[in-house]
Amino acid sequence: MNKITINGAGLAGSLLAIYLAKKGMAVEVYERRPDMRINDIGGGRSINLALSVRGIQALKEVGLYDEIKKICIPMYGRMIHSIEGETTFLRYGKDDTEYINSVSRAELNMKLMDMAEKFPNVKFYFNKRCTRINFDSGEVFYHNEELSENEFIIPDVLIATDGAASPVRIEMLKLPRFNFSQEYENYGYKELNIPPGENGTHLLDKNCLHIWPRGSYMLIALPNMDGSFTCTLFLAYDESLGGKNSFQYVNTPERLKIFFEENFKDVLHIMPDLENDYFKNPTGSLITIKCYPWVYKSIALLGDSAHAIVPFFGQGMNAAFEDCVYLNSYIEKYGDDWTKILDEYQKDRKSNADAIADLAQENFVEMRDLVATEKFRFKKKIETELYKKFPLRFIPKYSMVTFMRIPYKTALQRGKIQENILDKLSENISELENVNWELAENLILKELNEL
Amino acid sequence: MNKITINGAGLAGSLLAIYLAKKGMAVEVYERRPDMRINDIGGGRSINLALSVRGIQALKEVGLYDEIKKICIPMYGRMIHSIEGETTFLRYGKDDTEYINSVSRAELNMKLMDMAEKFPNVKFYFNKRCTRINFDSGEVFYHNEELSENEFIIPDVLIATDGAASPVRIEMLKLPRFNFSQEYENYGYKELNIPPGENGTHLLDKNCLHIWPRGSYMLIALPNMDGSFTCTLFLAYDESLGGKNSFQYVNTPERLKIFFEENFKDVLHIMPDLENDYFKNPTGSLITIKCYPWVYKSIALLGDSAHAIVPFFGQGMNAAFEDCVYLNSYIEKYGDDWTKILDEYQKDRKSNADAIADLAQENFVEMRDLVATEKFRFKKKIETELYKKFPLRFIPKYSMVTFMRIPYKTALQRGKIQENILDKLSENISELENVNWELAENLILKELNEL
Repeated sequence: MNKITINGAGLAGSLLAIYLAKKGMAVEVYERRPDMRINDIGGGRSINLALSVRGIQALKEVGLYDEIKKICIPMYGRMIHSIEGETTFLRYGKDDTEYINSVSRAELNMKLMDMAEKFPNVKFYFNKRCTRINFDSGEVFYHNEELSENEFIIPDVLIATDGAASPVRIEMLKLPRFNFSQEYENYGYKELNIPPGENGTHLLDKNCLHIWPRGSYMLIALPNMDGSFTCTLFLAYDESLGGKNSFQYVNTPERLKIFFEENFKDVLHIMPDLENDYFKNPTGSLITIKCYPWVYKSIALLGDSAHAIVPFFGQGMNAAFEDCVYLNSYIEKYGDDWTKILDEYQKDRKSNADAIADLAQENFVEMRDLVATEKFRFKKKIETELYKKFPLRFIPKYSMVTFMRIPYKTALQRGKIQENILDKLSENISELENVNWELAENLILKELNEL
Repeated sequence: MNKITINGAGLAGSLLAIYLAKKGMAVEVYERRPDMRINDIGGGRSINLALSVRGIQALKEVGLYDEIKKICIPMYGRMIHSIEGETTFLRYGKDDTEYINSVSRAELNMKLMDMAEKFPNVKFYFNKRCTRINFDSGEVFYHNEELSENEFIIPDVLIATDGAASPVRIEMLKLPRFNFSQEYENYGYKELNIPPGENGTHLLDKNCLHIWPRGSYMLIALPNMDGSFTCTLFLAYDESLGGKNSFQYVNTPERLKIFFEENFKDVLHIMPDLENDYFKNPTGSLITIKCYPWVYKSIALLGDSAHAIVPFFGQGMNAAFEDCVYLNSYIEKYGDDWTKILDEYQKDRKSNADAIADLAQENFVEMRDLVATEKFRFKKKIETELYKKFPLRFIPKYSMVTFMRIPYKTALQRGKIQENILDKLSENISELENVNWELAENLILKELNEL
């Protein structure tokens, strides 16, 4: 029986523990922080995520989805808030059967930990911070944060699910020929809050992802189970880039008030804690991390540690969960030959991780800027028509990524081809009746095979 | 008077010390290694570099070129060696006034150190290894390798010329929003040697850069003053990429002999130390490093520490020397306002460093593969004709990079346009007389302004 060590008890680590436990492996999960089920370590902030088909499938394969579904709120589309306060609903899928799910990161994480701990062959160790790896001897060193003691283990297999700042990956920088990049956006984010209304009602439509697109910046809001919304303001750090629309400039309560009055007037009155949230919460940074190889001997990276991405396609967690699905499929294929398992895992997942990283960066521009334009909405209409006419060939990029499980790299490639077709078809016109459908058919049959 | 600390007494650090000394600044140069003028630290290996116009200009501006010229060997073009041993000379420039210079890295470095030390306001400290930086306090920590003691300094300005593995840049990874990438080629290199003939004669034409292009790999040779040539074999690391043409496969004296007999038969007989060199010398790796910002407060990166590139355009040292020229021009512009000096320096140089990094990676394919093809040589002929007809508009990419000092990013942009034009003109033909010169003129006048 294999003994597997997982570094990091976050979403990916907790789900992976369940996958491996079901295969009968002995799993030990080491986590830097205290047990979040006992200690509130989120600083009171409630981050939520968008769970979609790839993540759902990963939960279904180990029988967890029914339980997780209870803490999910369906979001059927984007609700676009104009500067005048008008709203426009842009559906995500073809109908109400296609939606994404707002779920609290902390709640989901705790549920996954509870579920993992029900397996007798899973053990969690908290307050253990990975400090160093000796790649020759296989020793993995930990600092016990409670006892202030150092210790080490020699795992059969170590899988690092320790996030964007992965200490295991940082150690890998010492290895020869380790390719690595970290790229920050020039935009940061700030978490804000819309509290529940009376009796826990939602003060905005609860079944949408709300967006206030303002060109180079935006506010978004996702619903929580308690009637609140978690809002996130994405804004340029520096005045040199964003002018008055920057964290650097908006640095007093007066400027904050003016900024919101000018940009987000329709929600300002339901954000009583705005000033406190804005000045108390840290400004988060947005990073894309790419690296390769993900595997050295029997040490592997999975999830954000291997491929942290920006949040604009709502795919970070979904991609990490999909890593678990694929890793599991290679375990089924190769048994306990971890060399083969990890080699095929990294080769297969790397190109897809690169693709979703690019898709997520592209989507920032779509969310903050394009969704507000007539051109974008007209192209969406054409897209919907083409999807109806050619349901196996012309599938909207958003649907390929969110409602299907085709490889991310395929979604990226086909998305580009489709975007070119939409650009050609929408050139110089603004009504569906003027679209050259014959040209559309020719292009689609020529450039897109059936999926 | 400013007191400037330079970390790294390599080529860039030594030249920079001279630039700053001439401005009357107090300069302290800290170097990790012992003094190379006293201790032979190169392990007997003689690396040579190609000094071209950008580097020459940097030397001229501080009056050093006449002295350095004495240790340079002009190379007027590439001598291509076919697998059958036939040679073809491909000129680099328009005539014998345009050439690059083979120069020994160690000799050049020692000469620059000697010249720097002549200034009373320059002081070198050896065996001092930078271990850590406290960016808040400005403390820079050193380990004295001779005395095994730790110490720290607080420089007014610190400029890191400490190479691709820069410890200062590694410390910068701790800073928020530091963008960084390191990318290894799947090819390594091995230094080999052709010793001098009788009475120190060169056994190959000494005024060329010799290339044995073999598609996915190559051997090159540059002349040394003592009659020898330093050869470099560029080869895939792994059998999975290169098959039998890989370092992984060529791992016995028998396989080495067969590999050279099949590929480089015309020089095998003048490489008596091949086996020893091949198995004793380390396999070098090829890395491209990009990062940004280069400057934090009054700490800056310069040369390879900021932008390590692959060697295939012979521009690594030239780009670093050009950094010195530009930094110097901003000192002249802003006096001792180092905030302005360093800010304009990094903004100006970053895009050009990215451009030469890309150009250098492209040139690997040209050197190892394209130069051996008829198509490439035909396009070179067209290029030469167009350069004669439009000397201010159509300047060969190699010339823009090597014989001119226009910004690298301009060379990259114009190079792409020109490559497209050459592709169009050479399509389906192989004789100069069949070129559509009218089309050429139209394209050039439309797409390329006068330089």
